[in-house]
Amino acid sequence: MRDAYHDELDKLTIKLVEMTRLVRSAMSRATTALLDADLHLSESVISQDEEVNRLYAEVETSIYELMATQQPVAVDLRTVITALRMAADLERMGDLAEHIAKIARMRHPESAIPAELRDTIVEMDQIAERLITKTGTCIATRDVELSKELEADDDAMDLLHRRLFRVLLSPNWNHGIEAAIDITLAGRYYERYADHAVRVARDVVYLVTGSRDEE
Amino acid sequence: MRDAYHDELDKLTIKLVEMTRLVRSAMSRATTALLDADLHLSESVISQDEEVNRLYAEVETSIYELMATQQPVAVDLRTVITALRMAADLERMGDLAEHIAKIARMRHPESAIPAELRDTIVEMDQIAERLITKTGTCIATRDVELSKELEADDDAMDLLHRRLFRVLLSPNWNHGIEAAIDITLAGRYYERYADHAVRVARDVVYLVTGSRDEE
Repeated sequence: MRDAYHDELDKLTIKLVEMTRLVRSAMSRATTALLDADLHLSESVISQDEEVNRLYAEVETSIYELMATQQPVAVDLRTVITALRMAADLERMGDLAEHIAKIARMRHPESAIPAELRDTIVEMDQIAERLITKTGTCIATRDVELSKELEADDDAMDLLHRRLFRVLLSPNWNHGIEAAIDITLAGRYYERYADHAVRVARDVVYLVTGSRDEE
Repeated sequence: MRDAYHDELDKLTIKLVEMTRLVRSAMSRATTALLDADLHLSESVISQDEEVNRLYAEVETSIYELMATQQPVAVDLRTVITALRMAADLERMGDLAEHIAKIARMRHPESAIPAELRDTIVEMDQIAERLITKTGTCIATRDVELSKELEADDDAMDLLHRRLFRVLLSPNWNHGIEAAIDITLAGRYYERYADHAVRVARDVVYLVTGSRDEE
């Protein structure tokens, strides 16, 4: 028989997984908005970040209630505190998707991404999507092996990030400074999104194993 | 008479204030390294970030011990959980100073900052220093009024950040794309450093008042 405490923990897990769904959708739509200069889509990402923030606040409130009423110790304590860290990372991932949507909005009706960089941005988005999908599965299943896969995806993101800079710095670059600034910032946002996904997956490892051997 | 719990909380506060000192020094030295292309100084910032990370780990360990042994409730629980959030923000501020030091190292023996932007970077560093000094005082004294001052300093940082972009986008900019990328990223790091300082100060308000009316 389950007790109330573990029912509450399950609800927390469901909320975290729901946050991964929201920030995955946000990043995917932000990328489309960026590539296609879709103002309507960028506005929807920006306005819907509120929902991610609301879920974060709900997780925080649940955690305070859990701590105050159940006074967890040992592994239960680790679970609850780590959930708060995960929620904070996921909330930040929503902000990063929103930042990309804001670049799209700022450059509308132009696209901020010149033709020769579209493929790289599409690939960065695909890796971001793969990362956050795995992060959601890690949270739901506590799969330590899957957590480790995210490190390789993150390396792939870093390679793409460096490819962006190579294109910006090539002698053929003829889109000027403004586009270079947009792409520098957008690249940074994808890279940070990946970093946060990896942090959440590392937190799953920490939850299960009780040890951190990261960073 | 003080009890063991409050002695532990005081130690936690001392560690957080120590973290503010370390990340203040890191940012100030990183800025000098950036402006003067000082390789030795940039290396010292990069290697000393380890100390900030170590303090973060110590705070995290103390908090788990405190929670497990004292099982705090209500305001004490809020204090402990908020300390963990603050430590995470301060740890991130150390990373941001390190990122600036890495730009300095990458461009050595050149300076990444052209003459016409030196003053702006100096001002951004001064605001960063003012913010983190106030953050340290807020943590130590729980001064809610001082916390509010940080919002104005953060606005000043945002203005300087926009000034950077204006210079990069002016028709007179003749330092090319690479310098524009460096400055875009450095500007972002100063701005994020300020954001984290403000978050910590807001957490002090939350600690004292029990309510958040932020973001």
